[in-house]
Amino acid sequence: MKSREVHLVDRPPGMPSTDDFEVVDTDLRDPGPGEVLVQNEYMSVDPYMRGRMRDRKSYTAPFALGQVMTGGAVGRVLESHVPAVMEGDYVLSNFGWREAFTCAADEVTPLGKLEASPSAYLGVLGMPGMTAYTGLLGAASMKDGESVFITGAAGAVGSVAGQIAKVKGCRVVGTAGSAEKVDWLMDELGFDHAFDYHDGDHRKQIRVGAPEGVDVFFDNVGGELLQAGISCMREFGRIALCGAISMYNDTEPAPGPTNLPRAIGLGLNIRGFLVRHYAHMRADFMRDMVQWLDEGRVTYRETVYEGIESAPEAFLGLFTGANLGKMVVKLEAGA
Amino acid sequence: MKSREVHLVDRPPGMPSTDDFEVVDTDLRDPGPGEVLVQNEYMSVDPYMRGRMRDRKSYTAPFALGQVMTGGAVGRVLESHVPAVMEGDYVLSNFGWREAFTCAADEVTPLGKLEASPSAYLGVLGMPGMTAYTGLLGAASMKDGESVFITGAAGAVGSVAGQIAKVKGCRVVGTAGSAEKVDWLMDELGFDHAFDYHDGDHRKQIRVGAPEGVDVFFDNVGGELLQAGISCMREFGRIALCGAISMYNDTEPAPGPTNLPRAIGLGLNIRGFLVRHYAHMRADFMRDMVQWLDEGRVTYRETVYEGIESAPEAFLGLFTGANLGKMVVKLEAGA
Repeated sequence: MKSREVHLVDRPPGMPSTDDFEVVDTDLRDPGPGEVLVQNEYMSVDPYMRGRMRDRKSYTAPFALGQVMTGGAVGRVLESHVPAVMEGDYVLSNFGWREAFTCAADEVTPLGKLEASPSAYLGVLGMPGMTAYTGLLGAASMKDGESVFITGAAGAVGSVAGQIAKVKGCRVVGTAGSAEKVDWLMDELGFDHAFDYHDGDHRKQIRVGAPEGVDVFFDNVGGELLQAGISCMREFGRIALCGAISMYNDTEPAPGPTNLPRAIGLGLNIRGFLVRHYAHMRADFMRDMVQWLDEGRVTYRETVYEGIESAPEAFLGLFTGANLGKMVVKLEAGA
Repeated sequence: MKSREVHLVDRPPGMPSTDDFEVVDTDLRDPGPGEVLVQNEYMSVDPYMRGRMRDRKSYTAPFALGQVMTGGAVGRVLESHVPAVMEGDYVLSNFGWREAFTCAADEVTPLGKLEASPSAYLGVLGMPGMTAYTGLLGAASMKDGESVFITGAAGAVGSVAGQIAKVKGCRVVGTAGSAEKVDWLMDELGFDHAFDYHDGDHRKQIRVGAPEGVDVFFDNVGGELLQAGISCMREFGRIALCGAISMYNDTEPAPGPTNLPRAIGLGLNIRGFLVRHYAHMRADFMRDMVQWLDEGRVTYRETVYEGIESAPEAFLGLFTGANLGKMVVKLEAGA
């Protein structure tokens, strides 16, 4: 069977371009005993992939040049040679930007009966959703009724984090990069205050929504917003460092927060985390999130690019704010 | 009775000078019912006092201009009007840079039978010692046998922290500001490695003593050493932010660490703390530290300035590294 996949072909020091990627035709081997053939319907593009494009030691191995961009995808089984997986089943995999692939059956995760759209398993019910859940309830030990500040609040992680905080009775302030996103946060997701980070005084804006200060700060952005958030923390506040998307394309180290010594007198707890550090919370996450979706207490939106050729552009759009909610790439059925 | 005390008379933006302080003669009132008259033997000068010289909201109220520099002191009771306190008893107080004072008996803490020299209650058995203990065992959750990095390791807090870590079977690396201090850490306190922060590549030096990286980083200094320490952390390492003495006299915000995003992938926990946040650990601290002193597993040195006039100079010496161990001011008996 024919397929296409996207390779990384260059390691840009700064903002990547579509020239750093190449769409390549491949022939898939027929699945043998114990194997499955999967056709992807949705592929994920995520900010963390930017770090893997650099050739340096990090928490995940770098992508290899001339090899596929790996990452999450959801697809359907076209052919199965194991009894536990049926043709037509939806499976989650981590083989990345490919239209289809053959692999051992235990390298995919069957999704069973879908609780939401297939793409939701790359977002609200997937890694980003669990990142939001574990960041707030694990890393930041968020308590009901606290004041919460979220940067990148209209993104895949931030938009779920804000809604979880509302479910827990918190007061929620968020930042985003456009008026449209701010409206979504305020009008549909129930944020108590949201503002466009391009506008005005960040500290003043945070104080509008959290006049008594911030108990929990969930940071996806880093840079100036991290500094502003630190300035608004209350005594014994917790900061979950989830990402620093404002810095991922920097060619020189960006200045760090000058106000870190505030953490001393306030007894702040600043905790970096990856979702895999909280793998033990997976069952709780799935139970709660399925229920909240079912009750309509958590909703989601996606920004969908179509066709495997659009994957690089979709990925680059993460760094220019082209996404509202989760960014996914939809593949043509039967490609 | 006559006494002398030291007032703050100016708020310098940068490095203070002796001109910012004034020695003032006072008359003490005679103690009335429920009161005691105390003559101080030792007064404490501590880095945190620098922050209180600024007229801004912080975790403690600013010192008032034209008023005494308050802080810890140990003295003996000259006259008591309560049964629970006897003349000649040693008491700890927080009235600061004064030769003597009259106060309500419940505003001083009787020390009972001394377990060490009176001045030790301002150091290893006092606030700095408990800061070291609670920072390692509370804020940083240090486990036996971990690798520990301590900045300001020859100071009142750092020198105790290093020894506690050795008692707990840890590998300990420290920084100090002179060859003499480095020798003390290595030859007398049992550090596994120590280096003068004026010399060479900080990261390389930390790696000499902690080749596998650092589990617990106890930071008293901030600035470049904070950045270097973050660079050497292991997965799930903990950083106790105790102080930032390199920054206390800055007139402009100093650059923050550019490598804070490392905390994300490594799951670092960075916790600022004050000793008072761990007041519940006081009994454990006193029991352990008295025992360790008794067994000779913890020792201490002091840098002693004499006479109340020397208090400003002693205080300023904290910022130029004039102290080895705890800096105290000894007062003439019967002043």
